[in-house]
Amino acid sequence: MRLISGIEEMQKLAEKLRLEGKRIGVVPTMGYFHDGHLSLIKRAREKSDVVVVTVFVNPTQFGPTEDFERYPRDSERDRRLAEASKCDVLFTPETSEMFPEEYLTYVQVDRLSNILEGKFRPTHFRGVTTVVAKLFNIIRPHLAVFGQKDAQQALIIKQMVRDLNFDIDILVTPIIRETDGIAMSSRNVYLSAEERTEALILRKALDLAKSMIHGGEHDAGRIRRKMDQLITSTRHAHLDYVAIVDADTFDELPKLEQGRRILVALAVRVGKTRLIDNTILTP
Amino acid sequence: MRLISGIEEMQKLAEKLRLEGKRIGVVPTMGYFHDGHLSLIKRAREKSDVVVVTVFVNPTQFGPTEDFERYPRDSERDRRLAEASKCDVLFTPETSEMFPEEYLTYVQVDRLSNILEGKFRPTHFRGVTTVVAKLFNIIRPHLAVFGQKDAQQALIIKQMVRDLNFDIDILVTPIIRETDGIAMSSRNVYLSAEERTEALILRKALDLAKSMIHGGEHDAGRIRRKMDQLITSTRHAHLDYVAIVDADTFDELPKLEQGRRILVALAVRVGKTRLIDNTILTP
Repeated sequence: MRLISGIEEMQKLAEKLRLEGKRIGVVPTMGYFHDGHLSLIKRAREKSDVVVVTVFVNPTQFGPTEDFERYPRDSERDRRLAEASKCDVLFTPETSEMFPEEYLTYVQVDRLSNILEGKFRPTHFRGVTTVVAKLFNIIRPHLAVFGQKDAQQALIIKQMVRDLNFDIDILVTPIIRETDGIAMSSRNVYLSAEERTEALILRKALDLAKSMIHGGEHDAGRIRRKMDQLITSTRHAHLDYVAIVDADTFDELPKLEQGRRILVALAVRVGKTRLIDNTILTP
Repeated sequence: MRLISGIEEMQKLAEKLRLEGKRIGVVPTMGYFHDGHLSLIKRAREKSDVVVVTVFVNPTQFGPTEDFERYPRDSERDRRLAEASKCDVLFTPETSEMFPEEYLTYVQVDRLSNILEGKFRPTHFRGVTTVVAKLFNIIRPHLAVFGQKDAQQALIIKQMVRDLNFDIDILVTPIIRETDGIAMSSRNVYLSAEERTEALILRKALDLAKSMIHGGEHDAGRIRRKMDQLITSTRHAHLDYVAIVDADTFDELPKLEQGRRILVALAVRVGKTRLIDNTILTP
């Protein structure tokens, strides 16, 4: 596995690989790998000749009061896990080279960046789309893999790719969960033992939505209220939102229609830790 | 010369040319060619194996009250002139394919897009950087040529290319003028005979700045006031702005420093036609 941190070195290698006819797959991450990340790398491995994994804790996608400074990092462990996952290139650019002081350019996907997560994290998706556009120009991949855990991010990146004519296939892989059902997240390490137990409420709320929908409930408002009640009954949990939307457009769905794929997504703060989860259902 | 209007066809051709090791040069234009455009194509011809000229009157760079609808178009003449200039590919995408109804993504260069022209045309540069980013992803050029006539546009595109890590050389070619000194512009056709004469005031104001600076004047405010007076004395001319800035950063320069390249730029409305011009001077 090759380690690269310089942008020019990465760009030159990508150009060379392309000229050799190699198919490049990229997995953009913020590191601190768990099995979710490894499933992304595995998918890229299946679909590409050369797998590039990027680790970059991107300051532009954190708000001023968010956890950029304390976001967990372990570059040595990430390196070992990337190598074991048969990653070919581990790209770890420096913040000072990615976003130098005189940096001015942002990529913004309107509307989709302002709803749900965007309401609570107003500049988050602008930071995501900007860094992903940069990584696409540096690595020149044929495909990129993202996780369904960040469902809104995946949708926004697909929209950006289509709008800006990036010639890149976007693959989205399923959420990977711990044995007790909590979605894997680098932020789970923030949770105390008690909070870790309470965090199961996200999964339970999604299960509740599932059983209501399978039981024939078609009123999205009623499902949201039941999920809200369940979460509010949990001592340290605070609900940011529950969304029940069209899985492909994120359009609000007051009435669920048979056969239409819907996304049930929620964000919950457990103590000081903000967690997200979602599931796709078909009534 | 090959004519292409489909995005996918253009993208496939660019990919093929790159795999053949060809150096691609692009000249993005809004068509209605004059000698300024032809000088851009000539420069691209000198520096590239394959020259792609794009003609696209980009709706996103026009404000709601601006001249998008009546902007001059002559696709038959453009085709002839491009062919005569040894252009290899004339790319004329459709508006409905470039900006379909569900379009959402914009590229924005902060600060530089909000000064000078940006004050009078608030969404103009956002439209320019967005369409240029799209054209770069479609045509995958090694180099792109822009005109010094749109000095602020050239600076903003260089900033975008650096910030978003496009691996593309940006070349900027000098302003081409009519024999009487007026800068060539597709918008000159809007001018009546009387306005055409009055439009010479832009060139005269730049000459005045030049002679003041060569005469030892170092106070930018004094130069701006003299230029303002000259323009205001012209019957149908209305000054939008005069700027005297660092040519490489567009920083305001109250006092001109010896040896520092400065840009003197102005925008003037002559009747209903808005014209811009500029010159680079070294005190």
